[in-house]
Amino acid sequence: PTSLNLAVIGGDGIGPEVVAQGLKVLRAVTDQVGVSVTTTDYDLGAKRWHKSGETLPDSVVEELRGHDAILLGAIGHPTVPSGVLERGVLLPLRFALDHCVNLRPSVLFPGAVSPLDIERVAPDGIDFVVVREGTEGPYVGNGGALRVGTPHEIATEVSVNTAYGVDRVVRDAFERASARPRKKLTLVHKHNVLVHAGHLWRRTVEAVAPEFPEVTVDYLHIDAATIFMTTDPGRFDVIVTDNLFGDIITDLAAAISGGIGLAASGNINPMRTAPSMFEPVHGSAPDIEGQGKADPTAAILSVALMLEHVGLPELAARVDQAVHDDLAERDPSVPRTTDQIGDAVAARL
Amino acid sequence: PTSLNLAVIGGDGIGPEVVAQGLKVLRAVTDQVGVSVTTTDYDLGAKRWHKSGETLPDSVVEELRGHDAILLGAIGHPTVPSGVLERGVLLPLRFALDHCVNLRPSVLFPGAVSPLDIERVAPDGIDFVVVREGTEGPYVGNGGALRVGTPHEIATEVSVNTAYGVDRVVRDAFERASARPRKKLTLVHKHNVLVHAGHLWRRTVEAVAPEFPEVTVDYLHIDAATIFMTTDPGRFDVIVTDNLFGDIITDLAAAISGGIGLAASGNINPMRTAPSMFEPVHGSAPDIEGQGKADPTAAILSVALMLEHVGLPELAARVDQAVHDDLAERDPSVPRTTDQIGDAVAARL
Ligand SMILES: CC(C)[C@H](C(=O)O)[C@@H](O)C(=O)O
Ligand SMILES: CC(C)[C@H](C(=O)O)[C@@H](O)C(=O)O
Repeated sequence: PTSLNLAVIGGDGIGPEVVAQGLKVLRAVTDQVGVSVTTTDYDLGAKRWHKSGETLPDSVVEELRGHDAILLGAIGHPTVPSGVLERGVLLPLRFALDHCVNLRPSVLFPGAVSPLDIERVAPDGIDFVVVREGTEGPYVGNGGALRVGTPHEIATEVSVNTAYGVDRVVRDAFERASARPRKKLTLVHKHNVLVHAGHLWRRTVEAVAPEFPEVTVDYLHIDAATIFMTTDPGRFDVIVTDNLFGDIITDLAAAISGGIGLAASGNINPMRTAPSMFEPVHGSAPDIEGQGKADPTAAILSVALMLEHVGLPELAARVDQAVHDDLAERDPSVPRTTDQIGDAVAARL
Repeated sequence: PTSLNLAVIGGDGIGPEVVAQGLKVLRAVTDQVGVSVTTTDYDLGAKRWHKSGETLPDSVVEELRGHDAILLGAIGHPTVPSGVLERGVLLPLRFALDHCVNLRPSVLFPGAVSPLDIERVAPDGIDFVVVREGTEGPYVGNGGALRVGTPHEIATEVSVNTAYGVDRVVRDAFERASARPRKKLTLVHKHNVLVHAGHLWRRTVEAVAPEFPEVTVDYLHIDAATIFMTTDPGRFDVIVTDNLFGDIITDLAAAISGGIGLAASGNINPMRTAPSMFEPVHGSAPDIEGQGKADPTAAILSVALMLEHVGLPELAARVDQAVHDDLAERDPSVPRTTDQIGDAVAARL
């Protein structure tokens, strides 16, 4: 592409601050190759909800569809009841735009501080990616409750899994595994208990595997996966899993590879029937809003994921490398502002 | 009690070996105070299934009901298809005997090797207990599938949660928190997405809390809980959570506090309408069966949990202390057999 038409949802708290640095780096790298970037801001999140009670108007979804990709900061604020913005903005965006692949790489960057005793448990480093399903599982909002507030209350949550939904994600994961040096795919589920969903996932992996004979396939129950995540994270290359297990394992993965502050993610529509959305995994951290304390690294890495997705992989690699070098050479004893980190990365391009 | 009438299910692989050491330690400690122990063995697991196709006959369940408690080794073998023994023996036992409290303590014993950089992330050690619900949630077997094996397959799993079921577990957790020095309870769920089940759990905790004003209450989403489990495990005291989240978080908890080889568990019926069951969290490890290599520590610690439950807390404390001292003073460079570890702990009583 020679131009990029982006929708930008800064969101709440530090969201707009970190997105600004992501855009700074994006402009720096696209300028060099003559790709022009236009952005349109969309106001979604706590402020809009407080003002108008609106979460995600249909008209906004329609406008978002007209863009090449979406960059999102963070959505959420303690003044909004839990669940309102998650189920009013974040999840509806994933569902409306069919973001079935929620992509979350975990890389132990130089100088990143892991809670693990890395030299002992991951001497060769950490470098894997989780392909989390994003539009099914227990996230479909298909639960209900009876006799609420009485001693006879019953509340259900239904996990919905379809062959169509699982197949497209499993294929995406195999393709990613095939393109990586180690070519290994680990399915994470709990098929000894969640038999129906689990067997659908297992059979789908078995059915697709022969198309990718170069990929080694492995299986772990979600409980065992959390053990290996701490005792031998180097064993993972590509993980494919359902929406809820993926939610859990990616936070753990971010924690062990230097913290959620460095974790980028892509909500990807691999069919390209709607724009994909890229966002740091961290939240809106309203306690440090406007103080220049937020680390924009995850937002910048999310821009790299976006560049990869829109067909500019060389630019993505350049941004990744700039972040890598910035982290390797920074002096952790000298704190930097949000802006300074963005400038430093941009200057390396 | 002056006598204990136990049912023993050695099970598969190393199960019988580690249970034998648990019983050795149990006899050593009960002998001293004149409590007599009788045991009856029940043959359940892979061998029985291979021989007769039986998993858990109703007659066995009825016989088990006649005991004061059940000691279980491990059930599972690679020659049995995944799910058969889990859903044929382990889960039916929990459901039939109404083991609503699945209790899993995590203690960093001296000399235990954690994958975490403990000095940095848990300088004050790790000492918490998870109260996992054991009879509801997505474990109820309430899923199904349509058009299996076709491109139109749909598979569901239903998480069932009742006020009755959640209340009894939450109360048990509050009681445990109240009896511990730090008196802190953390509810772990995902109520921003799983709203119906999540709100039932949240409301139940809020409703019971005023009865325990001395207990501090805290909430974490399951994804955030996995982060804190690695970055600040010392913050946890008592965790209460649902069946599936509890399955995941307790394996992670075992991993960070020295490995699943040291983790004990109790499947407890707090109403005392049926015997409770105590078992090491580890599996049957058939690869080391019969070689004297299995570490019986988790089985011995499970005996301590049993002693506590049957009303012999001083004996439980003595067993715990003996394990503690044994671990503190062992020389990790000198491997010991299963039997030698049992002898060493028994000798300390
Ligand atoms: C905010 C929440 C709805 C969301 C999720 O559960 O997917 C978040 O935890 C994430 O992982 O992106
Ligand atoms: C074996 C399996 C059914 C079981 C569970 O999921 O509860 C195990 O993982 C456990 O934690 O005891």
